[in-house]
Amino acid sequence: MPKIEHCRLVELPKAYLLMNHGPVVLISSAHGGRRNVMAAAWTMPLDFSPAKVAVVVDRNSYTRELMEASGEFVLSLPPKAMAGKVLAVGSHSGREGDKFVAFGINTVPAEKVSAPLIAGCVAWLECRIVPEARNQESYDLFIGEVVAAWADERVFRDGRWHFAEEELRTIHYLSGGSFLVSGSAFEVSPT
Amino acid sequence: MPKIEHCRLVELPKAYLLMNHGPVVLISSAHGGRRNVMAAAWTMPLDFSPAKVAVVVDRNSYTRELMEASGEFVLSLPPKAMAGKVLAVGSHSGREGDKFVAFGINTVPAEKVSAPLIAGCVAWLECRIVPEARNQESYDLFIGEVVAAWADERVFRDGRWHFAEEELRTIHYLSGGSFLVSGSAFEVSPT
Repeated sequence: MPKIEHCRLVELPKAYLLMNHGPVVLISSAHGGRRNVMAAAWTMPLDFSPAKVAVVVDRNSYTRELMEASGEFVLSLPPKAMAGKVLAVGSHSGREGDKFVAFGINTVPAEKVSAPLIAGCVAWLECRIVPEARNQESYDLFIGEVVAAWADERVFRDGRWHFAEEELRTIHYLSGGSFLVSGSAFEVSPT
Repeated sequence: MPKIEHCRLVELPKAYLLMNHGPVVLISSAHGGRRNVMAAAWTMPLDFSPAKVAVVVDRNSYTRELMEASGEFVLSLPPKAMAGKVLAVGSHSGREGDKFVAFGINTVPAEKVSAPLIAGCVAWLECRIVPEARNQESYDLFIGEVVAAWADERVFRDGRWHFAEEELRTIHYLSGGSFLVSGSAFEVSPT
């Protein structure tokens, strides 16, 4: 279990529920003593079991270099309280300097992969890349098998999001410095 | 211009902005006098220009059959007011009967593809499939080039979402009959 307060296991066949609503994510990576973190809006669940995700990572990014070298990455879901850091890591390259240090981003070791979990986030998906050279080269598209998943029990438990406090809600990227906060849940019947 | 009130052109390099925040979509398809509509949460932007999207469509679905036969599809973004219909079309197969008729879903001809736009939605992306047999067969993953994009000017104009009235907000799928409404926008500075 990662050493993060309120962190609880999410069963792998339920990992897609963390991503179904389209939140922005932080992608962390590590290889050979180097590490990085970037922001990504272009990501989605791809399969239930084995759980998979798809994510777009630009070919010129430092994250891409570390992902391809290590074959691993972690998706961490930042809450509203971290939006400024999301924008910051999305606006700079790790080649300019260590973004964890520059922006005060703390990490916790993952359980199954070398890339770290981002502290302060509310859910985490540890992923191993399913190599698909054509997708990676033609579309900057990566497929990851989720090998471990975790969530902050204050906002995700029993396979469902339970958002209350504004600062702990997940966020959705628009453009520039603009985000949407995940809004109210509602239930409908088919009509 | 599609015959939908408030419908305005979205320039193709800005089409990704319609999808950046991860809303649920309706996928419509048509071929040889047959048509269908389904709901999908697993979709994301894939490129800016030419604009592309990625979407997961189950191999057993009727939509899949029509998409592969026609090489086309349309993504329509339903507002909260349509959530019941989203759940309904997501809970039944078009092989059981025409879902447009069964659930009172109106359509408008698209400009560049045979699949229809769904009336009552707030944005539309007309797409041609970029054939990628391995993705389609191994991952149920389709890549579409966006060949036309439209949005309801009441909620999307000048390249930005401007949500106000609750019933016109886009929605995000959780599970079962549960959705989140797109919440408040906020701006941050990198910190």
